[in-house]
Amino acid sequence: GLSTPPGPRPALDLAGIFPPLATPFSPAGEVDYARLEGNLRRYASLPFRGFVVQGSSGEYPYLAPRERLEVVSRVRRALPGDRLLLAGSGCESTRATIEMTVSMAQAGADAALVVTPCYYRGAMSGTALERHYAEVAEASPIPVVLYSVPANTGLELPLEAVLALAQHPNVAGIKDSGGDITRLGLIVHKTRREGFQVLAGSAGFLLASYAVGAVGGVCALANVLGAPLCQLERLCREGRWQEARDLQLRLLEPNAAVTRRFGIPGLKKAMEWFGYYGGPCRAPLAPLSPAQEEELRETFSANGWL
Amino acid sequence: GLSTPPGPRPALDLAGIFPPLATPFSPAGEVDYARLEGNLRRYASLPFRGFVVQGSSGEYPYLAPRERLEVVSRVRRALPGDRLLLAGSGCESTRATIEMTVSMAQAGADAALVVTPCYYRGAMSGTALERHYAEVAEASPIPVVLYSVPANTGLELPLEAVLALAQHPNVAGIKDSGGDITRLGLIVHKTRREGFQVLAGSAGFLLASYAVGAVGGVCALANVLGAPLCQLERLCREGRWQEARDLQLRLLEPNAAVTRRFGIPGLKKAMEWFGYYGGPCRAPLAPLSPAQEEELRETFSANGWL
Amino acid sequence: GLSTPPGPRPALDLAGIFPPLATPFSPAGEVDYARLEGNLRRYASLPFRGFVVQGSSGEYPYLAPRERLEVVSRVRRALPGDRLLLAGSGCESTRATIEMTVSMAQAGADAALVVTPCYYRGAMSGTALERHYAEVAEASPIPVVLYSVPANTGLELPLEAVLALAQHPNVAGIKDSGGDITRLGLIVHKTRREGFQVLAGSAGFLLASYAVGAVGGVCALANVLGAPLCQLERLCREGRWQEARDLQLRLLEPNAAVTRRFGIPGLKKAMEWFGYYGGPCRAPLAPLSPAQEEELRETFSANGWL
Amino acid sequence: GLSTPPGPRPALDLAGIFPPLATPFSPAGEVDYARLEGNLRRYASLPFRGFVVQGSSGEYPYLAPRERLEVVSRVRRALPGDRLLLAGSGCESTRATIEMTVSMAQAGADAALVVTPCYYRGAMSGTALERHYAEVAEASPIPVVLYSVPANTGLELPLEAVLALAQHPNVAGIKDSGGDITRLGLIVHKTRREGFQVLAGSAGFLLASYAVGAVGGVCALANVLGAPLCQLERLCREGRWQEARDLQLRLLEPNAAVTRRFGIPGLKKAMEWFGYYGGPCRAPLAPLSPAQEEELRETFSANGWL
Repeated sequence: GLSTPPGPRPALDLAGIFPPLATPFSPAGEVDYARLEGNLRRYASLPFRGFVVQGSSGEYPYLAPRERLEVVSRVRRALPGDRLLLAGSGCESTRATIEMTVSMAQAGADAALVVTPCYYRGAMSGTALERHYAEVAEASPIPVVLYSVPANTGLELPLEAVLALAQHPNVAGIKDSGGDITRLGLIVHKTRREGFQVLAGSAGFLLASYAVGAVGGVCALANVLGAPLCQLERLCREGRWQEARDLQLRLLEPNAAVTRRFGIPGLKKAMEWFGYYGGPCRAPLAPLSPAQEEELRETFSANGWL
Repeated sequence: GLSTPPGPRPALDLAGIFPPLATPFSPAGEVDYARLEGNLRRYASLPFRGFVVQGSSGEYPYLAPRERLEVVSRVRRALPGDRLLLAGSGCESTRATIEMTVSMAQAGADAALVVTPCYYRGAMSGTALERHYAEVAEASPIPVVLYSVPANTGLELPLEAVLALAQHPNVAGIKDSGGDITRLGLIVHKTRREGFQVLAGSAGFLLASYAVGAVGGVCALANVLGAPLCQLERLCREGRWQEARDLQLRLLEPNAAVTRRFGIPGLKKAMEWFGYYGGPCRAPLAPLSPAQEEELRETFSANGWL
Repeated sequence: GLSTPPGPRPALDLAGIFPPLATPFSPAGEVDYARLEGNLRRYASLPFRGFVVQGSSGEYPYLAPRERLEVVSRVRRALPGDRLLLAGSGCESTRATIEMTVSMAQAGADAALVVTPCYYRGAMSGTALERHYAEVAEASPIPVVLYSVPANTGLELPLEAVLALAQHPNVAGIKDSGGDITRLGLIVHKTRREGFQVLAGSAGFLLASYAVGAVGGVCALANVLGAPLCQLERLCREGRWQEARDLQLRLLEPNAAVTRRFGIPGLKKAMEWFGYYGGPCRAPLAPLSPAQEEELRETFSANGWL
Repeated sequence: GLSTPPGPRPALDLAGIFPPLATPFSPAGEVDYARLEGNLRRYASLPFRGFVVQGSSGEYPYLAPRERLEVVSRVRRALPGDRLLLAGSGCESTRATIEMTVSMAQAGADAALVVTPCYYRGAMSGTALERHYAEVAEASPIPVVLYSVPANTGLELPLEAVLALAQHPNVAGIKDSGGDITRLGLIVHKTRREGFQVLAGSAGFLLASYAVGAVGGVCALANVLGAPLCQLERLCREGRWQEARDLQLRLLEPNAAVTRRFGIPGLKKAMEWFGYYGGPCRAPLAPLSPAQEEELRETFSANGWL
């Protein structure tokens, strides 16, 4: 257990939809800040709760530290004050994570999204991860959101560690991308007293997550289909489950296509069809082949989105 | 794809809750049919849609073929005619599965629950599994329900195979115990025209499964907490999601305890606390230690069930 | 630990090569005992230490209990007395495994090869497996050989359980098909005093296994290339490592082709090219496509075997 | 396939033992270059082929880029000219990997050890990885050594990619830490014409790797037991297999203890017992508990090393 004294939960309301912004690159592979701002202008009309930068969809492992911070600054300046900015600040070491978290707070982030360190996964016990997050939360000037994404890290933040960290006053919630809905329900159930907030990490299980008590979602697909995702969120909040189900089911295949199936290259390609700048990924992420692009397009059209 | 001509869906309505019955053994390890019938009498007052025998909770891999059939016969005779009897008839080879399926139909089963063969998992491609199930469905006098349970078999029936098999007129649905709610939604979404029925394979994701369109559940926990699970089903059917959520969350820990955490020995122990006969498991399943039993009990009491 | 009193190791010398016999089926899918005996006659000239029946290559999960026993009887009668007969007697329950082991001893098996039960893998802790094997070893009239084959069972017999069981006087050794050469070395190292015998479970790591102290191998490839495998064994025994390496390397691709890559259908097809009866597998194992057959053949010819 | 024209293999002979140097930190967590040089002075008397810096044992994911380069410079200056310096230069993106590789060459590295990028593992197909390495090899002024370490990265560089890259004139070999001895043999077998060099990535399978044709090893344990590992290497080279086996077996448990079991904290603790500076790890790697330290010590003493 953590020895931190309980305190009032920071008044950070995470309820709603957050796109984890894709990072636009120029054909030469440089971060294209103008394109980023252009996308943000287009997103401005949608009722997003806020934006995540440097999530997995942002190719953050491919960005230099100064690029990571510059993206945060630019997005902060481009956003209205009522939109939250969550910045992914996770690094492998505790010290680097703290340093990055502090820098991102200075650059304007409202909260830090901290992915589990994973390289020495054999040593990343629940205890080690709990200590890591507690130290980051202690040092962070902004609330911390835990981030568990087994498809990328190969490990899941253990439930026991989540429950212990939920008691820390500077830990606001979790983005859980694992898709284990039983686990999400358990997190909700066991942290009710703490007001810990659960965000679904993918549009694939957004309705199911609301059904068990999640408050929102950080969904790659929101880069593409932001309006329907905000609509799904409203239907869930209003208890209109039959309509919510119909909408959720139509989003499943496009979501799978821009995540598991074709990854960020697929996400960026689809963004272009919906009026956003997508552009290339940094290598070793490879562009889609024409056949893959066709399959991606078919996924959107078969579900009535194109 | 399958070459079977489309036909009218068999009129087998799977909507509702099914306990996968535990198999009572005497202290000497023999099947105790009297205890089985005693449990069924106690279950008679609950609004279950029916019962599964020889599911994973029934220790079917530990039963001889004649025991498997005798259990089916006994349960059939003990059940009112309006309760469905689903019998697990899966074996490793196609020929043995067909033989067992036919025998179970003769013994009174209404439908056959057919687990994926798994020993040669490296060779169990979607194509091989699709062919297996198609041959079984062709030969079976009763409708077939697919059964995917990766925690036990180490493989998942691939989505593509499920979708192809959903078109077969003698395949009624699937019991999916994997807990991947995105996949469950995809199955519902892609088989709507066929009237294919999806059953959640665990109480851990029952509400979430209803939320995406499942029609029922085969839940080990129903051996213990049948009434609350039938209540949860009614709340879902009636669209009372807030109440459903509260109930679902209270069931998560007991469900985990009698499945993942303590397995069938835990399930049987908990049955005893609720007035059913539990008794021993066959080896190598081992009885709970006193400490485990205490932890199991705490799980039920902390959630208000004891 | 086990309470069995230490005693003299049974005088069962497992040193050498054992083919895990493929089970011949007629085109109609019946066990073809005449073909089985024909293959044995062809194998008679090779210096095998003995034969395994009902190993994974024997499609044992697809055989009825009476077929399993009849195969043992037939092979026993066909073998010269100086060749060992190891019979796979593992079932899911302890009681069925004991019953099958006793029956196989009566049918003429010299030792029982007992695969880890695996369906309830979440409950198959080292302790549970240790107790299972100890009970089987106690009840068995013939020595027991442990059998760990994670590619099929999805679990590995834990090292600690192996070391504990190595002290049992009726446990003669282990067939380890996992291919973790560090683990094999550890088993050799930690059981030296007990005279526990380690058999490599595949030709892919036969030389490496000898290098760390194994005494032999049970190799599917021996159904096809028995002579070179016996030659490899002799080179290893005589310390002619450079020649052994050259031979081992030429066997790697054919071995992978008849195991991981194309499984038993590949094994049986290759047997036919070398003068043995292969024939069909039971479903759901599917025959090779012409393209797969071509690839299989190329694997043998490119390494100078065809 | 790669379009690079074949050329003469660079004259970089990797045959022998390389310790992947642990990175000493002061109690405050700063890189302690004096301690690093002290350890190198102690290693000078051992017949190592060279040293690896920024391998997994070097906590490279916890070092800032400038620290990574400074370590390379310091080690280069401290080494006699006949000892090779391999520097781990892998980053997630191709562009960062190239930049780091070039910088490390400038800092004095003889070759670059390039770990597989892994965060987007779902997208890291053989094709994507092949392209990544080919671009790095093209741009690198020094030979590239592939580095596959599934225990940390959660992915294995596919065999087909290894074989294709083996044809590139600036790819000298592979450090394979996966321990799949069949795969190592296949790599040796299929790259014989190219003179591609295979290094075992752990002392646990060093003898077995030599047996199938590896030329050396990069072994964490060499930080602690360098002399016996060099002795094992000599015995293998001279074909004294029986002695080699005896030595290999005594190294298995200490090796497992400083890798899988206790990781780098265990490695550094053991270094202290043998006269080297170990010191703390950076968080989130945690120091051993007294009980763990005792178990570690027992592992060394039971095998005659303490």
